[in-house]
Amino acid sequence: MSAPLNTLTFCLGGGRGEIDACKEQFIERLKSAVAIPSVSVEACHRADVVRMVHFVQKELEKLGAKVELHESGEQVMPDGTRLELPPIVFATLGQDKSKKTLLVYGHLDVQPAHREDGWKTEPFELVQKDNKLFGRGSTDDKAPVIGWINAIETLQKLKIRIPVNIKFCFEAMEESGSEGLEEALRARKDTFLKNVDFTCISDNYWLGKNKPTITYGLRGVCYYYMEITAVHQDLHSGVFGGVVYEPMADVAWMMSQLSDVNGNIKIDGLLDLVRPLTDEEHKHYETIEFDQEDFRRGLNAPKLQKEKKADILMHLWRYPSLSLHGIEGAFSGAGAKTVIPAKVIGKFSIRIVPDMLPAKVDKLVLHHLNKLWHERGSPNHFRAFSHHSGDYWLSDFKHPHYQCGVRATKTVYNVEPDFIREGGSIPITLTFEELTGNNVMLLPMGASDDMAHSINEKINIRNYIEGTKLLGAYLLELGSL
Amino acid sequence: MSAPLNTLTFCLGGGRGEIDACKEQFIERLKSAVAIPSVSVEACHRADVVRMVHFVQKELEKLGAKVELHESGEQVMPDGTRLELPPIVFATLGQDKSKKTLLVYGHLDVQPAHREDGWKTEPFELVQKDNKLFGRGSTDDKAPVIGWINAIETLQKLKIRIPVNIKFCFEAMEESGSEGLEEALRARKDTFLKNVDFTCISDNYWLGKNKPTITYGLRGVCYYYMEITAVHQDLHSGVFGGVVYEPMADVAWMMSQLSDVNGNIKIDGLLDLVRPLTDEEHKHYETIEFDQEDFRRGLNAPKLQKEKKADILMHLWRYPSLSLHGIEGAFSGAGAKTVIPAKVIGKFSIRIVPDMLPAKVDKLVLHHLNKLWHERGSPNHFRAFSHHSGDYWLSDFKHPHYQCGVRATKTVYNVEPDFIREGGSIPITLTFEELTGNNVMLLPMGASDDMAHSINEKINIRNYIEGTKLLGAYLLELGSL
Repeated sequence: MSAPLNTLTFCLGGGRGEIDACKEQFIERLKSAVAIPSVSVEACHRADVVRMVHFVQKELEKLGAKVELHESGEQVMPDGTRLELPPIVFATLGQDKSKKTLLVYGHLDVQPAHREDGWKTEPFELVQKDNKLFGRGSTDDKAPVIGWINAIETLQKLKIRIPVNIKFCFEAMEESGSEGLEEALRARKDTFLKNVDFTCISDNYWLGKNKPTITYGLRGVCYYYMEITAVHQDLHSGVFGGVVYEPMADVAWMMSQLSDVNGNIKIDGLLDLVRPLTDEEHKHYETIEFDQEDFRRGLNAPKLQKEKKADILMHLWRYPSLSLHGIEGAFSGAGAKTVIPAKVIGKFSIRIVPDMLPAKVDKLVLHHLNKLWHERGSPNHFRAFSHHSGDYWLSDFKHPHYQCGVRATKTVYNVEPDFIREGGSIPITLTFEELTGNNVMLLPMGASDDMAHSINEKINIRNYIEGTKLLGAYLLELGSL
Repeated sequence: MSAPLNTLTFCLGGGRGEIDACKEQFIERLKSAVAIPSVSVEACHRADVVRMVHFVQKELEKLGAKVELHESGEQVMPDGTRLELPPIVFATLGQDKSKKTLLVYGHLDVQPAHREDGWKTEPFELVQKDNKLFGRGSTDDKAPVIGWINAIETLQKLKIRIPVNIKFCFEAMEESGSEGLEEALRARKDTFLKNVDFTCISDNYWLGKNKPTITYGLRGVCYYYMEITAVHQDLHSGVFGGVVYEPMADVAWMMSQLSDVNGNIKIDGLLDLVRPLTDEEHKHYETIEFDQEDFRRGLNAPKLQKEKKADILMHLWRYPSLSLHGIEGAFSGAGAKTVIPAKVIGKFSIRIVPDMLPAKVDKLVLHHLNKLWHERGSPNHFRAFSHHSGDYWLSDFKHPHYQCGVRATKTVYNVEPDFIREGGSIPITLTFEELTGNNVMLLPMGASDDMAHSINEKINIRNYIEGTKLLGAYLLELGSL
């Protein structure tokens, strides 16, 4: 067994102690990264996004990596102006044909942040308080990206042999729909991606605040529009109310017919697509560390649709859910407007799970919507269609690659990680799996309360420093494969 | 009978011919008024609104009226800035105690207009084409206001005795909720308004394009909010969908339970409040000139909820209607957002008719909503409340004041006007009726296709010139009272 050996290499080789010794230096490096307001969604910060790309380029080059900056062309902003997309970093460290190759993905851009949104500190200044590091991008996704650099730097410094070649794909448009990334990856299927043996993405979070987790599944999504048109323009409800078949009444009724109060989806045949639950899987959910009452309180919800721990986790991860998002075309502002909307688009989506294929889901959903519309008997114009969809992702946590993650976690945190899924989608996971044809693992660094995308985003110093060790130990564990 | 006399006075006295002779001059006067972009809702045009007030002040003073400009104080704009309200014109022409006193209301401000909205001509330039005068405010409400001035000027020029004292109330905030008007009127209940014997408002439209109408009724409105809250902030539907009781599902269901597909209101007891239809009233609707197919085509509606002429008119004017306006807090933008809204406010209103009193309607509606919510069985927080309400208005078209309008119409248009109601509210109508304690009549000048509030607003030259005659003839007819 190579596990003890790699663990020993890491610990006795001094990785653990060295990383602890470099703690302040690593915090400084993260501070420099957070100080660059690389907000991809705000045009005024585009130069900062590019600055962040160059910052990471230099750090990778210091490690000896060969860095290619891929120019992705132009982006058309919502107001029609055109903006150069930031380059994508494709880097290679090691080309030893006797070694396997790891692909690491991360992103360099961040969500917007303004002090007046409710930040207690300057968002683009990394502030240390109560063993936490506050700042925009601290956990999403700068600490993991810098963590890889810290870990590799440490191993190099201690002259510990890294048993894999490493490729890096760091994009800077993740918070803006990863524009340009998929094309750039597809174009590199037979070059940059050709010999990738496993992919590791550190861009998600533990299930809780204390216990490490590894993620092996994600739900997919099917998003639908119901478009109902009655008249050629919005009408005054005083002048026309009483004789017009109002699209809002139609759409409210249609939306009310998709699920019941407890969230049970009422679309014929849909649940038949869901992979049956085995006893073993059910038991697995019961072993996961999760405090359902803490979860409910965190949301400030009066009650949840499920009460037991395993039921909650399964309904978040392994069963489909249907959410009504809103209505385009209806009055949505504050105050009172007496309008009869002429045309409305009801929007909802279904989170899909194994074995629900989007094409099959689309067929059932659209058939159901058209049947409902017939039942409604409104003379208005109706059109239902799929807006977009994305597959679910499910890996096998018994795969040797995952076992490397497990051993690295045990080395660093002295505990077996929980294997979890997530309810949302990370489409790039599927893209890497498809293009490399090999295993992908999501290895989170941050904790569940890190507040990514929200105000007062932070990463615990523990998660950052032990997380750096985790990435280093994981690199060494890969030598066993 | 004084009717023939007044008609003779008007025709033989030369009013008719003189107004025709002054056609170009009157169009020029309207052109000057339209050239002032008195958009009350846009802060940048506030000085233009005031300019329009001064323009009319001067015209009234030329007629010999005594003009008071009432300063209404400050307005707080949505962005928090403060703006001086434009003055309200209170003017008096004649103080002969042997005469009765007419109050005339009109407004000097207009809706916004921008060429790029789809205007075929410059909105603030009165353009003559196909016997129509295009321009913002042409029909709403500058032609009627200028029409009064034209008519009085003509009678004075021809030395035809005006048999009533005239008071004018011209406000300049009508398109912005008449801010400041009601307070100013209430403060003048025992002074300016004290001896008003009848009020005439020309700020609405014929039912069709060709036949004159007089309006004797308006529906009121009761506007409701249903506020449903589940969690403390909007959630990602991927991460949380499946266990949260979603407010959107609740509000869609609640909204779907208020009326059926044909618009029948499902609120217990509500229809019992509606004044029963008499045979006479039913017959009246059948005599009104109205082309229901033309109406449907104008809306581009595939079908209407009622087919027969009388049914359509009654459901627009003398029966209540319920409209769902929209949902605050839900996703309403273009594109696809995977959000679970945390808190939504469903908004709807009911148009009320005789004998539905708002207090009674509120009681039934709120009781029904709370009953529905109980039936729904959702654990979310629910609060339903009335946002605002306004009474219906119903006058008696057999009143002698209305008969003056009828005779004036016959003199000018050579036809009996149709007595109509409208489905919307003009709250100031009720205020005048209440404060003067006397009869109010709505005497429209423009036609149904004038496109007030829309692009390419116009008034037909016929409506403007014959309408000026109508106002003049009406002034003379008032001598009979």
